[in-house]
Amino acid sequence: MKVLVAIDSFKGSLSSQECSRAITEGIKIADQQAEVLTIPLADGGEGTVEALVQATQGRIIQKTVIGPLGQPVLASYGVLGEKGEVVIEVASVCGLPLIPTKKKNPLVATTYGIGELILGEIENGCRNFIIGLGGSATNDAGIGMLQALGYSFLDEEGCEVGYGGGELKRIQSINASGVTSLLKECTFKIACDVNNPLFGLNGAAYVFGPQKGATEQVVKELDEGLKHFAQIAASELKRDIHNIPGAGAAGGLGAAFEGFLNGQLLSGIELLMDTIRIEEKMAGIDFVITGEGRLDRQTAMGKTPVGIAQCAGKYAIPVIALAGEVTKEAETLHDFGITSFFSIANGAMTIEEAMNPVTAYANLKTTSEQLFRLVSLVKQSKHEIKCEV
Amino acid sequence: MKVLVAIDSFKGSLSSQECSRAITEGIKIADQQAEVLTIPLADGGEGTVEALVQATQGRIIQKTVIGPLGQPVLASYGVLGEKGEVVIEVASVCGLPLIPTKKKNPLVATTYGIGELILGEIENGCRNFIIGLGGSATNDAGIGMLQALGYSFLDEEGCEVGYGGGELKRIQSINASGVTSLLKECTFKIACDVNNPLFGLNGAAYVFGPQKGATEQVVKELDEGLKHFAQIAASELKRDIHNIPGAGAAGGLGAAFEGFLNGQLLSGIELLMDTIRIEEKMAGIDFVITGEGRLDRQTAMGKTPVGIAQCAGKYAIPVIALAGEVTKEAETLHDFGITSFFSIANGAMTIEEAMNPVTAYANLKTTSEQLFRLVSLVKQSKHEIKCEV
Repeated sequence: MKVLVAIDSFKGSLSSQECSRAITEGIKIADQQAEVLTIPLADGGEGTVEALVQATQGRIIQKTVIGPLGQPVLASYGVLGEKGEVVIEVASVCGLPLIPTKKKNPLVATTYGIGELILGEIENGCRNFIIGLGGSATNDAGIGMLQALGYSFLDEEGCEVGYGGGELKRIQSINASGVTSLLKECTFKIACDVNNPLFGLNGAAYVFGPQKGATEQVVKELDEGLKHFAQIAASELKRDIHNIPGAGAAGGLGAAFEGFLNGQLLSGIELLMDTIRIEEKMAGIDFVITGEGRLDRQTAMGKTPVGIAQCAGKYAIPVIALAGEVTKEAETLHDFGITSFFSIANGAMTIEEAMNPVTAYANLKTTSEQLFRLVSLVKQSKHEIKCEV
Repeated sequence: MKVLVAIDSFKGSLSSQECSRAITEGIKIADQQAEVLTIPLADGGEGTVEALVQATQGRIIQKTVIGPLGQPVLASYGVLGEKGEVVIEVASVCGLPLIPTKKKNPLVATTYGIGELILGEIENGCRNFIIGLGGSATNDAGIGMLQALGYSFLDEEGCEVGYGGGELKRIQSINASGVTSLLKECTFKIACDVNNPLFGLNGAAYVFGPQKGATEQVVKELDEGLKHFAQIAASELKRDIHNIPGAGAAGGLGAAFEGFLNGQLLSGIELLMDTIRIEEKMAGIDFVITGEGRLDRQTAMGKTPVGIAQCAGKYAIPVIALAGEVTKEAETLHDFGITSFFSIANGAMTIEEAMNPVTAYANLKTTSEQLFRLVSLVKQSKHEIKCEV
């Protein structure tokens, strides 16, 4: 029996890796002969680099680049084992966690470091990039990244503008003559789970500005900057970068990737499944285990378990979803290819007890063991069928 | 797919019948074609008559007899549908619930009504009796029942003694000349889940006397009465009635059935499974569902789920045990033939919430549905196996 475990973290309790380990141990008690293949998952946010590096036996690299406020930061990123793609999480280069709360300022915060990392790896021969948006402290429409890659954003006097969202409104022209021609050979896959346009009430500044430290006045200023930049970019690029779904992600970095670098915006889980070529891993698999901390109505909206289930569905593999909590609304998951779902709770308990990592690990292990005691017995009886000629 | 549901009640939450209904509904959602056979269970205690009558499509009869304190009581008992055995629960004839707390008095409480019911049914042609001990208010070593059946217990002046445990010490001889000869044709199967001897520190008076209203002094007096009666009985019957495991059940009624009526003491679940001929019902069954409110170390000690599992094991049928709570110690259940066990909890919740009948019913139904979505898919794939010639 071959089982593929591709489960999200139980947030606040167990990581994807810990979940995978508990399930594997449980299955092995039920059936020592079972082969269990585990794929740690992440949705393009925190943990994406680690998950992809681990799934492909790649490596983590650390490099000092310019941080969100111009200070040096030691950023970690990944080089994948199979095809050598480079994976960067925006949060680790110019993310909110890198800035003390009082210093948050999207008027000056820059995405420059992202461009530095990309350029460095282009020089190392890499052409394929995966970027996890999310968690950025910036609202610069990605001009910092583009500056690092050789783009010039010039004011009305033809001088290069500075860093940050506050500079956008000053841009009058864009000069791409300093951009390495190697950039044309590069592909960018962008993990992006929001659909916001670049500016306006649903845009980057209004929706995400406040959490990055923007006051009402600053939000307005940033929004005007984004709108102005979109007009300049439209005349340079001969295309609209405002209305791309996800253009407003990471303070407009989505728009920069799509509009300037021909990037492809994908949902985090789609990108992840594509990168680790999960479809190929389904070959010969008898059962798929997926899940996340809580299975509910939201689970059906493109999050991990459903993505995995739809992939398994192509091969008619039964999919078991495990969770700490299963709400009544989880029943819609059957429509998305999840065969069965189970809570790992073993009786009445408090939420603190349920989320205690030791308890959750033990319950996940036991639930997996019990399920595979049952299915391996049922499956086994297959071989007892007598064939009549 | 054929499923046999034989599940105990979830005490304080759902009856065996309600559990069976919830499980059946869940299975039917997963597999409309599934045939679900349900057998309501009881362990010889409360609910035994109802469960057996329902399982055999028998009938309930009500009859007024002498109650524990000599007052008339309307007792209910069952006549089973298949073989016409009569089933009597001691508790409904001379049980504690029939006496106000202040009037509890094992010195006078009598088992007379049991004998009346038996005699009446012997006269109706019945020869096979099933008796559920447990819950009695008496400590009379069964002499009340035997008196009703025609035995005389005489004092030193040759006069019949009165009712209750207080009279035992006065008995000097036993006269069986008034006993109907039809009694010899009768069989008595006794559901008894305790192993206590008749007297002594582990005997009926010391262990069960206090809950029947006996003070320390009364316990001592009752115990001496039982010991004295055992000696008289031994010389009359030419056998010891003290050391029979279960002799001390129901205030010594166990000893009376075994010693005087050649009764067979069985565990409640053994008797139940035997009576409803559960083994015959296993033919052609693909899965057995059992369970009880809480699966723990005690479950392994001969309670319902293990009894059912051992029976299913003879036919190599997978057994799924469901419960409100599953403790760590439940893992020993695998050694007793339970394939897998699951808690029906769907996440963190209070014990009150878990035991709320509406919640418990919904969770039991959902867990059953999810399990059968999985196993029916796995089982189905059986039929896709290609046979090579």
